Amino acid sequence: MADNRKVGVLGGGQLGRMLIEAANRLNIQVNVLDAANSPAKQISAHDGHIEGSFKDAAKVKELAQKCDVVTVEIEHVDTQMLEEVAGQVVVEPSWKTLRVIKDKYAQKQHLKEHGVDVAESIDLEGKGADGLKEVGVKYGYPYMLKSKTEAYDGKGNFVVKSEGDIDAAIKALGGRPLYAEKWADFSMELAVMVVKTKDGVLSFPTVETVHEDSICKLTYTPPRNVSSSISQRAQDLAKKAIAAFEGKGVFGVEMFLLKDDSLLINEIAPRPHNSGHYTIEACPISQYDAHLRAILDIPIQPYMLRLKEPAIMLNILGAATPDSDKKVAQYAIENSDASVHMYGKGDSRPGRKMGHLTITRPTLREAEQAIQPLVDFVDEQKGNALGPRSDDPEPEPLVAVIMGSDSDLPVLKAGLQILEKLDIPFTTRITSAHRTPDWLRTFSKTASSTSLRVIIGAAGGAAHLPGMCASWTTLPVIGLPVKATHMDGWDSLVSMTQMPRGEPVATVGINNSTNAALLAVRILGASDKGVRERLRVWMEGNEKEVLRKDGELLEKGWKQYLVSMGK
Amino acid sequence: MADNRKVGVLGGGQLGRMLIEAANRLNIQVNVLDAANSPAKQISAHDGHIEGSFKDAAKVKELAQKCDVVTVEIEHVDTQMLEEVAGQVVVEPSWKTLRVIKDKYAQKQHLKEHGVDVAESIDLEGKGADGLKEVGVKYGYPYMLKSKTEAYDGKGNFVVKSEGDIDAAIKALGGRPLYAEKWADFSMELAVMVVKTKDGVLSFPTVETVHEDSICKLTYTPPRNVSSSISQRAQDLAKKAIAAFEGKGVFGVEMFLLKDDSLLINEIAPRPHNSGHYTIEACPISQYDAHLRAILDIPIQPYMLRLKEPAIMLNILGAATPDSDKKVAQYAIENSDASVHMYGKGDSRPGRKMGHLTITRPTLREAEQAIQPLVDFVDEQKGNALGPRSDDPEPEPLVAVIMGSDSDLPVLKAGLQILEKLDIPFTTRITSAHRTPDWLRTFSKTASSTSLRVIIGAAGGAAHLPGMCASWTTLPVIGLPVKATHMDGWDSLVSMTQMPRGEPVATVGINNSTNAALLAVRILGASDKGVRERLRVWMEGNEKEVLRKDGELLEKGWKQYLVSMGK
Repeated sequence: MADNRKVGVLGGGQLGRMLIEAANRLNIQVNVLDAANSPAKQISAHDGHIEGSFKDAAKVKELAQKCDVVTVEIEHVDTQMLEEVAGQVVVEPSWKTLRVIKDKYAQKQHLKEHGVDVAESIDLEGKGADGLKEVGVKYGYPYMLKSKTEAYDGKGNFVVKSEGDIDAAIKALGGRPLYAEKWADFSMELAVMVVKTKDGVLSFPTVETVHEDSICKLTYTPPRNVSSSISQRAQDLAKKAIAAFEGKGVFGVEMFLLKDDSLLINEIAPRPHNSGHYTIEACPISQYDAHLRAILDIPIQPYMLRLKEPAIMLNILGAATPDSDKKVAQYAIENSDASVHMYGKGDSRPGRKMGHLTITRPTLREAEQAIQPLVDFVDEQKGNALGPRSDDPEPEPLVAVIMGSDSDLPVLKAGLQILEKLDIPFTTRITSAHRTPDWLRTFSKTASSTSLRVIIGAAGGAAHLPGMCASWTTLPVIGLPVKATHMDGWDSLVSMTQMPRGEPVATVGINNSTNAALLAVRILGASDKGVRERLRVWMEGNEKEVLRKDGELLEKGWKQYLVSMGK
Repeated sequence: MADNRKVGVLGGGQLGRMLIEAANRLNIQVNVLDAANSPAKQISAHDGHIEGSFKDAAKVKELAQKCDVVTVEIEHVDTQMLEEVAGQVVVEPSWKTLRVIKDKYAQKQHLKEHGVDVAESIDLEGKGADGLKEVGVKYGYPYMLKSKTEAYDGKGNFVVKSEGDIDAAIKALGGRPLYAEKWADFSMELAVMVVKTKDGVLSFPTVETVHEDSICKLTYTPPRNVSSSISQRAQDLAKKAIAAFEGKGVFGVEMFLLKDDSLLINEIAPRPHNSGHYTIEACPISQYDAHLRAILDIPIQPYMLRLKEPAIMLNILGAATPDSDKKVAQYAIENSDASVHMYGKGDSRPGRKMGHLTITRPTLREAEQAIQPLVDFVDEQKGNALGPRSDDPEPEPLVAVIMGSDSDLPVLKAGLQILEKLDIPFTTRITSAHRTPDWLRTFSKTASSTSLRVIIGAAGGAAHLPGMCASWTTLPVIGLPVKATHMDGWDSLVSMTQMPRGEPVATVGINNSTNAALLAVRILGASDKGVRERLRVWMEGNEKEVLRKDGELLEKGWKQYLVSMGK
């Protein structure tokens, strides 16, 4: 870069380390305040670092004197001192933001005041067991008891399942500043990394986060089986939440997707976040690049935050034995093409984040298949009984086979069997152009924003189904004319081929669902070498079968062959 | 990783730096022998580094004592000392290999002895001007005069264009150990990064390298307009070359693709190489990961070396002013989603490699479009008069439009115009199923290994063209029935739709080339959102046009409207 500004960071753990990895590539000097040999310092050799705690006010001041911009990799910092130094150095995000966010109750009140949907919560400071009982009356059980500060990875949280839990809850969290949250009956946890710049608020794609024992285990981008409109709403909500705070940088926004498809903010981190690690491999610029850019006023365009390929991130946690994490890393390195990031932390303790790995693939389904052995290995290391292996996740359909009537289904059977045989995920729907025109319209209009890539439309008679579908979608539509009661299927064949200029239907032979399916496979194969290879092998099988028959005919002679055919 | 082996590296430039970047992620300690604050040392803070020159035997010995494996980022090292220390520490690749390769003449003789195709060369040591004249007689002019050692980035090379150049050549390279190489009249330069492990020889994909002033400027992966069979031959040749050497690690193999499509080795680097930088973003593991794995016997599987996405790498070189490289970096960071790598080198000098950047895209064509503004900016920085902007490279065709006869071309016109309008690169060929059956077979069988993704076959009469094509390819084939002399096109329509189960032809309406083209666009759009969006906009335009006509009809009334139609 053309400037020589120095960045100071409070905290030198894995987030600071990955921030420095990004800074190293741009030759930006980052001065770290943390213990000697902390993960971040290991990959940054210069004399600008400071040894000490990021909670030590004097050290914060010392750091500020050596930098142009000060930022954080953790929110549990001395915001008093940051407020003091803010006169002499740029602090991003603002100390005010850090002060609000580090108190989770204040954070939620702040969001609520700005019209952002958050879980209902009640302040419990100084209220003791009676306060907890009142919450039970108001919210019912279970509810979540939380420490306002210094809570992370499930530490500082307690699920109060009944009035009988209250004593244990107070014992576990006693002495901490507490508040209670209404239980969120969510179907999924989502997260969005938001980037706040001098010009506005941008976001990375929506992520599904999967927690185990209250610690993030996996992230999926895009979220599994979540519509793009929900993903968009999640990004919008996250951006709205972060717009409510001052300052620049990236923010991790964790959300609940409730069973009625509404979204609630769970909590916010004013810094790079575990749910954004996937961006290193999956997006043009990572959350760390984005944080550096935001705090240094280097422009960011929305396209730089796009998802290049679906990605799954798996945390590598300390587990049963001190070398569990090293074993996981080694297993992944030797048996997968995952990008492995080990953080250079000293001691491995159960649940400690020692590293992570990311796998990207052209489709999420392929990424799921690729990561499964690693997840299994992690579970073994963790000492989990493997138990009955969870079923493979239902793959998202690439082909929709739609039919005007269930009477078309028997004709489709051979084609559906081909799709199964060639391992193409598909869905079958009944959508009549004339009896359910609105449903056909809705289906067709939304098809291209789902996982679908090709549509097969089977219909007899007037056979308007594939043609109408093609008029409402940009996806390729294959027409399968079905022989109905009259005209031997000619009516349908011509209705499909003779579409007006503008909306083609790829028509195959009458009742030939095999070819409709194989055409769908070829279309998918045009951009997927794996599919193409499966098709090639299948075609080779057909060729061999005909050659075998030819050999038999040559050997037996035509008369004997006819006999063997029973003719 | 589970082990604590330490790696020593001779040289701490950008290659050592990127090697350390890879090692940092795996927590592998790398000890660097080079000057203090060399690029590699900047991102590696520990006390295992050694300050000094990688040519200093005593320092090499000191390094060896601190490491388990010693490797190089440069071949101009003291192989004598490496031979000495090889008893006490693993040296990879072998000092023998380094010794042969660092002498370019010896390198070529070695390859020749192992049956590898290299340019013809003649030893000139001690032969003076007479020797050079003899070379001119034997090889003709121009030929290449090269220093056997210490030559890189064009330094140490001299093009002898005529006998009159000989004095200047001797003056330029006098005192160096020289040899001459026959001029390779190449159409393109290719390179392959080869990985030699304890188990065998693997390779990354083939790269096209573009040099300017004898310094690598750009690399394209895959190479532009090179068939996959040539790319495969380049990989095979590179692997054969490296199999001729002892030791483990990555090797950069530079080749010439001659005008007769044959390949010659140009030269070999026994280390990570500029032509392999793209692997950081474009492959599951990078050349640096692969080098570490190879020298540490960590397994590598071929799929880890695959190309995830086409990639273009642009070197950021020192240019006219000391901050030219910084300006390029800043321009790229602000105006593109390129991954920018600045090496942390001190002084910028014209031609010095200060950094590089990589852009990846789903297709090479998109990558070319994305990188063009950056190449233009670099050229401006370099002080090049921009001159007439080179034409955009001819994009590789995605659609082949084949026809049985040129008499089908007028029918195809409307469809070809649509493809042009929607910016789909295509090729048109005449391939008659009955008059050129062998050419059709060759075309169809090789289609899927070219850039082609969809084929449109237009034919009249018996109209076997698309059906036969479909029988020889796995790509989707669209059939356009052309109305010939008899039967109004019914013959062709039925010949295409009624293909037997197994080889579908996606048939559109008789003479409706518009729909054939639009179906091809939809098929491409199934996996390319950009294409889909262009199609959506086009369809929207059609919708508006019909709505406009409806408004006009409503306004004018049907009688007036008919008049305005001239009917």
